[in-house]
Parts: sequence; structure tokens; C-alpha cells
Amino acid sequence: MEDMQSRPDTRNIKIDQVGIRGIRYPITLLDKRNSTQHSIASINMYISLPEAFKGTHMSRFLEILNECHNDISHRKIVEMLKKIRERLSAKEAYIELFFPYFLEKSAPVSGQKSLMSYDCAVIAKSNKNTKIDIQVKVPVTTLCPCSKAISDKGAHNQRGFITIRVSLDKFVWIEDLIRIAEQSASCSIWPLLKRPDEKYATDKAYNNPMFVEDIVRDIAKSLNDDERISSFKIEVENMESIHTHNAYALIKKGELIS
Amino acid sequence: MEDMQSRPDTRNIKIDQVGIRGIRYPITLLDKRNSTQHSIASINMYISLPEAFKGTHMSRFLEILNECHNDISHRKIVEMLKKIRERLSAKEAYIELFFPYFLEKSAPVSGQKSLMSYDCAVIAKSNKNTKIDIQVKVPVTTLCPCSKAISDKGAHNQRGFITIRVSLDKFVWIEDLIRIAEQSASCSIWPLLKRPDEKYATDKAYNNPMFVEDIVRDIAKSLNDDERISSFKIEVENMESIHTHNAYALIKKGELIS
Amino acid sequence: MEDMQSRPDTRNIKIDQVGIRGIRYPITLLDKRNSTQHSIASINMYISLPEAFKGTHMSRFLEILNECHNDISHRKIVEMLKKIRERLSAKEAYIELFFPYFLEKSAPVSGQKSLMSYDCAVIAKSNKNTKIDIQVKVPVTTLCPCSKAISDKGAHNQRGFITIRVSLDKFVWIEDLIRIAEQSASCSIWPLLKRPDEKYATDKAYNNPMFVEDIVRDIAKSLNDDERISSFKIEVENMESIHTHNAYALIKKGELIS
Amino acid sequence: MEDMQSRPDTRNIKIDQVGIRGIRYPITLLDKRNSTQHSIASINMYISLPEAFKGTHMSRFLEILNECHNDISHRKIVEMLKKIRERLSAKEAYIELFFPYFLEKSAPVSGQKSLMSYDCAVIAKSNKNTKIDIQVKVPVTTLCPCSKAISDKGAHNQRGFITIRVSLDKFVWIEDLIRIAEQSASCSIWPLLKRPDEKYATDKAYNNPMFVEDIVRDIAKSLNDDERISSFKIEVENMESIHTHNAYALIKKGELIS
Repeated sequence: MEDMQSRPDTRNIKIDQVGIRGIRYPITLLDKRNSTQHSIASINMYISLPEAFKGTHMSRFLEILNECHNDISHRKIVEMLKKIRERLSAKEAYIELFFPYFLEKSAPVSGQKSLMSYDCAVIAKSNKNTKIDIQVKVPVTTLCPCSKAISDKGAHNQRGFITIRVSLDKFVWIEDLIRIAEQSASCSIWPLLKRPDEKYATDKAYNNPMFVEDIVRDIAKSLNDDERISSFKIEVENMESIHTHNAYALIKKGELIS
Repeated sequence: MEDMQSRPDTRNIKIDQVGIRGIRYPITLLDKRNSTQHSIASINMYISLPEAFKGTHMSRFLEILNECHNDISHRKIVEMLKKIRERLSAKEAYIELFFPYFLEKSAPVSGQKSLMSYDCAVIAKSNKNTKIDIQVKVPVTTLCPCSKAISDKGAHNQRGFITIRVSLDKFVWIEDLIRIAEQSASCSIWPLLKRPDEKYATDKAYNNPMFVEDIVRDIAKSLNDDERISSFKIEVENMESIHTHNAYALIKKGELIS
Repeated sequence: MEDMQSRPDTRNIKIDQVGIRGIRYPITLLDKRNSTQHSIASINMYISLPEAFKGTHMSRFLEILNECHNDISHRKIVEMLKKIRERLSAKEAYIELFFPYFLEKSAPVSGQKSLMSYDCAVIAKSNKNTKIDIQVKVPVTTLCPCSKAISDKGAHNQRGFITIRVSLDKFVWIEDLIRIAEQSASCSIWPLLKRPDEKYATDKAYNNPMFVEDIVRDIAKSLNDDERISSFKIEVENMESIHTHNAYALIKKGELIS
Repeated sequence: MEDMQSRPDTRNIKIDQVGIRGIRYPITLLDKRNSTQHSIASINMYISLPEAFKGTHMSRFLEILNECHNDISHRKIVEMLKKIRERLSAKEAYIELFFPYFLEKSAPVSGQKSLMSYDCAVIAKSNKNTKIDIQVKVPVTTLCPCSKAISDKGAHNQRGFITIRVSLDKFVWIEDLIRIAEQSASCSIWPLLKRPDEKYATDKAYNNPMFVEDIVRDIAKSLNDDERISSFKIEVENMESIHTHNAYALIKKGELIS
């Protein structure tokens, strides 16, 4: 049966990334507290394609995924990237995993436990070296300092999302980035709050007003001081309760995997 | 050229709806204040297909849309439905339009004007009679009565969405439904607020706490008293600032176009 | 601490559904082949609220979810609904779970195995009796009979989605509904196809052209004959390769949980 | 009334982008054929915030938008960016507009006309100089060369999306980029096709098989030769009819506005 993909190509143009997008797969992740955690990822896998070849063999990405999805650890991602480069004869390999990650949180007063979900990602690239970025998206409460200062009582507040992406020099737990985000907001969020917890969360946010500008800066300060992290991108987006548009701030340092 | 769709079908099963979904088209709408308004709709058009026919001729939906999109008025929708039934030899015809609708709003203190967008819909069905439903989705501020009652200062509040769908006995302006929704929330939303406006909005919401339960009930009360409206569905969904899940309430009365 | 939700309400309006939406939680499901399967669900939980009460206690939904998510079986859902009705003093309780479900599929010629994901749902309601609907959304290949008939070679084909929702009189496996959907399309879909498999899938679709009208009718015929199923809704939507809008067909029979 | 945003900030951290996201607004665009076109945009506006200031004044973005949305031309965007920099005392200003753009297309055989919608964007940045990127997302038909080569008859094909983003050295019409995309696919797409048109589209795609790799390369070749364009990013994504995951290819050259 003819192998069209292996035919020569005469246009003399390299392709930066070619592969598959949006394949959904169950994965097993390392978990700081419980050793492993089941999740479900949306996965992209690419290679760079040299000038000389017409196409790539996309089914091989699936074969490699089949061999590896039961253990998505730092070490395993390095191994997957190596396999991709070997079996698809590529200089560069990419893998991107987007998945929900769960942490058990205890409500601040009642202590009641519940599971909080966070959208996370691992983005990795290898040629000779391997580079790994991790990303967390953390829902928080933000309370507006301006509204508090000018109003009689109360202040507008809202659900905000803090997204932190970091390029790793050394291993960093997803849990560590989530903690940095939650400590930088007006208040953290819990799935299960009884009345004394709701009072605590309301009071804490009121006493801790933060602009999106304040939050990105506080997180940038934390990450600047962290020797495990060479590059980062921090985004804060507030689903403003008094507008339909969102407030947004971004600080970026260094280079991330594009 | 063979016309497969017109072939007979022997399975003896009527199809309730068959047609096209998600065609995006510029439309011109009636506007209470400015007579007309340009918008862009995502449009679905269906017929019911009798047992005897294998298929429908989908390009005819587009031909009818081409003739009519420059005037989406109550009268024109009745005409479109009639054309669909005639040209596709169908007993029932359906048209669904989803579009943003803009109103100019003046900020409550400064009076500064800006354009506020609302996701609206018109859903229509005809066999011999024509039935028309209209729908508005209105972003508002909601402030939690429980959080206010138990906390030292402040109260959690958030962006909420009020969705009202009504079946029309007589003509109702989109603007009228939007007004009912905005008056039933803790506070209305404006795109452009200067500091005195922000103080007003913060104070008003604080003095007007509402559960999702309160809002659906107040709107149900208004609509129950409105003789132009025979059936309705009211939904309120709060993007809770202290949770990642939403709070939700629904009241339904009578039958809407399915 | 004041309990505002328990206060009396004088508007004399019952609320049809009030509760929480969009809480994401890991769940454990029954699996026809492997006994259990881990997934992650987006969950809605509601009650109906009598005229007399101002509000409901939303944190109790989370408490019940915490007790039950490790076993989402038919029996357990009946138990969850009973708990909701008891602890929230409600006549009606609702639970809706939306989750990806995975099946291992063997490629048709090479036999290579891979995991295929399907968006599924369980929708349940109880007052005195419990009613359970299940839903599957199945991606398939569809090939146009008209295009095949009129063209020199080839025929346009595309990714289509078949959504089947059924109201259960007796237990039905998710796997059974998926099989019915896949057998009714021009061809089934596999995540991992080697070249001989791709040839098989291309040829099979070409020899098996189906309009959306054909597919809904064939499935309706299967479900009409199935004594376990009293009501159903079948939808087919083609992401047409020659249009940006979709082709769509729907057949409905009986009543589903609204 | 206190102006908290103007307070000094001591963290000594510049913010790369701060502003508003997702404001929906009606706009008027230049149109190559009809001089102007109404559309509706989702708009982001940012500035960079110097180390010394605590916050930015977000309502001013709306004021500038109110003054300018009735003419979104190249010249006007330069003016808007200048206004943003002046009124918000910023060194860098950004504006991003995402909007559907409509072109009238004539079906290839019948000549019947209909309106085709394309998701487009304008991304602009200014400090002293102004840089403008434009982007089009073009739905097309793609037909697999491998499937055609190995199968008895027919070949799998599908809806694909070609996204081209270019950085402008000289003015380029949106229409020109759309034309390049449509000419590089297996076949273009039309909203309204009669049977002879459907035959044409089916035959043309069958005679013109293209991998995602072929399409990105052909477009890269065109853009490399275009002296108006200094940098570009080309992405092709196929909603594969025989898979649920997508096939994807990317070629990038030079720097785009991040």
C-alpha cells in the first residue's frame, strides 16, 4: 500500500509543528499528597517536519500515547518526547496536556472537606534538551479597592481567574503554583462552605481588596524570587460583577514554549 | 441530475425537525428607539419531513434566508415560515435566530452613554398558525442576602445572568423584557462607569440583596400579570464569587416552542 | 447565625428547580467490560422549592455529593436523590451528570487498540418515583448519498455527531446505545487507524452513504423495537465538509426529563 | 472621591498589559467591494503600566471606544492607539478586535449568491511606532491524499480551518488573505450550493487532494513572495471525518504582536 507521507517534497519549506490536536485520553498524574491521581486530558502532539518529506505518520502519535498515558510524570514525558522523535524521525517533538486537577480543601472554619478542581496544563518540547512548562488556572475571589474606598458599605467583588505558566529549571509541584495564586487573591475559593465559612470568606475578601494589577505584581514578586523558575507568564482576569467585560492584567518574563 | 431527496422512503417514520444549523448571517432588526438595528445572527431553519420522503432540499433554506434577512420583523418571520412550508412542501416550519442586541445606556450618576450588548433569540414555528417566542439573556449584579446578614461588612456579589423566554400572545419589545430583568436584580450593569457611578452601583447592590430564588420569583410575578404573555421560562444563574460552581433557579409556566 | 434561607416567603410562587450548576467532580462509573471506570463529571443538582420558603441550603448538595461520587451506579443515583429530598425537605430532586466515557476499540483490519471517548450524561429526577434518562453523543463518519450519486468519483463526507437520549424503563448500558449509533452511520470512528484500516474506513463509508434523515430514522426504528426504552430523542448533526453550517435531523418520542 | 489607581506603587514591577477584555461592540469596517460593512466585535484594550502607578483607569478605554467604533479603518486604529496612550499616560497601547466578516460568494456553476462569514481579527500595538497584524480564519474542504491513493473509490474529506495571521508592512485587504487560503485548499466552501454546484465541489476536492502539510506549505510559499508581509503564522486544522481528534500543521516566520 502506497506511503504518500514518505514521498519527497520539493517546496523546500520546513513545517514548525505538525501532528494531532484534541485527542481526549484518561491519564494518571503524580499527586503531592496521594502519590497518584486519575484525570482526563485533552492532548496535542506535534513534530517539526524537515523540508525533504511530504508528510508525517499521525497514527504513530497514538501508538506512543497508548504506551504511556498511565503515568504522566516528569520522567515519562521526557521518555515520550524521545519516542516521538525516534519513531517519527523528527528533530523536535512537542506534547501538550490540558487536564483538570483536584485538591481536597478544608473549609476555613467548619473544616468540612471537598474537592476543588483546577484547569492545569503541561507543555513540553524536546530537541536535544527537554523543556517543560506547567500551567495552573486558579479561580479566586477578588474585591475592588476603589469600590471599597468610595462606597458607604460593601464593595463589588467577583470570581476571578489567575493563570500562571512557568518554565521549569527544577521540578515544581502543581500544588505549589496553586498555593501562590490563592494566597495572592482577596480570598481563596472552596466548593463547600457552611455559614461560618461564608462569613469568613466575605470578611476576608473585604479586608483584603486587590486590583488585578496588585495580584499579578504580588505573584511576579514571588516567582522572581523562586530559583526553580526561569520564565513565567501571569494573567489575572476578573469577571467583573459591575460590567460584562472583564478586567485583565499580564506580566511576562523570559521565554516560554510557544 | 438525480434528485435523491425526493425518492420515496419506506421506513414509515416522520422526522420532527430536519434542516440547517449554525448559519451566520447579518440581519436587520426592529429597534424600539432607533427604528432599526444591524446585528449578526446564528440561524437554524427546519421543517418536519413526512413519512413518504427520503430527504429535504437544504439549499432552499438559504434561498429564503437570502430574500429576507434585511428585515427581521414579526411580520417578516411569519412570511419566512410560510415560504419555507411552501417551497419545501412541509406542514411545519421552524426558524431560530440567536443574536446580540445593543441598547444605549446612560451611567446612573455621570450620565455617560455606552452600548450594552444582550444575547437575544427569536424562536418561531408555524403549521397553520404561527407561534413566536422571544428570549433575552441579561447580565446583572447580584448580592447575597445571607452573606450580608452574617458578615461584619460587605457581602459577596457577582455577575449573574437572567434569561427570560416568553411565548407571545401579543407583540412585546425585547427592550421590555430587558427592563424587567434589570429591575429585578440587585443592580443593573453598565459598560461605562465613572467613579461616582461605581459608588452608586456598589451601594445600590448592597442595599438590595437578592438570592437567585428572589429574582426568579419577582420576575415570575411580573410576567404572571402581563396579559401579552401566555407562557414563560425564567432562569437565573450566578457566577458565584465564593465558589466555582454556579447558583441557579428556574420557574416555568405553560408551553414554549421545543 | 441567622438562617435567611429558612425564612417564610410571601410571594406564593413555587420554584421548579433551584440548586447548583457546573460543579466538576471525579466520579466512578459502572463499565460493562471492566466493571468500573474513572471519569470526571460536570454536575448539576436541584430541588423544587415550595411556596413557603425563601431559599434553599446549597451547601447540602455538596455534602451529599461528597458522600456518593465514588460510585455512580443506577442504585446509587436513586439513593442520592432520596438523600437530597430528605436533607433539603423537597418534594422533587434532580441530578444531572455530564462526563466523558471511554471504550477500547480495535481498528477494523490491523486490530490495533485505542481508547475512544464519548460525551455521555445521566439525568435523573425523583419525587416518589425515580426516572432516569441516559444520553450518549457519538462521533461518526457520514457520507452524502446525493454527492455520491451526482459526482464522477468520490463523495463529500464529514464528521457527524449522533446524540441519543433515552428514558429508561429497564437498565440499558451506555455501551448498547453507542453501538446502535455507530452501526447506523456511514462508518464508525477509531482513534488509531493504520493504512489498511484507513482504506477500510474510506471504502465502507463510500459503500454506505447516509443522509442525516436516514440515520435518525434507522435509530428510531431500533429504539421503537426496544422494550427497555419508553421515550427517546435522537439528533444527528453533520459538520458538512462543503458548508460552514451543519445539517441536522431530530426525531422525538414520548417524554423526557425536562 | 479618592483616586486609588493613581497612588504610587512600591513593588517596582512594570505590568506588560492591563485593561479590559471581551467588550462586545458594533463596528463599521472598510470593505473592498462595498466600501463599508457593519459587524460586531469582541474587543480587548490594554496599556502597559509603569512601575510607579498602582492601577489604570479602565473606564477611559470605553470612552475612547465610544468615540471610534463607527470607523475601524487602518488610519482610525492608529488614532485610537494614540488616544489610549495619551489619556492613560502609557508608553504602549494595544487593541484587539475579533469579528465576523462577510463576503458575497457566487456558487461555482449555478452562480447563485450567498453571504459567507469568516472570523477575522485586527491586533494592533503602538509605542512610538504602530504595528498592525490581521488574521483570517477560513473554512475549507480538505481531501486526504493518502485515503484517495489506497482506497477503491472515494477518499475521506472534511471541514478544515485555515488561519492566517500576518504582520503588515503595507496595507493588505482581508479579502486578499481569504483568497489565498481558499485557493490553497482542496476546495473552497459556499453557503448555498445547488446540485450542479455540489457535483463541482465534490469533483474538485477529489481531484485536488491536500494534506494539512501541503496547505501550510503552499500558503507559506505565497506569503514568502509577498512584499507587503514581513511576518506570518499559518495554521491548518482538519476536523478529520475518520477521527475525533484533528490534524494540524503550523508554519511561522518572523515576529507577531504577542
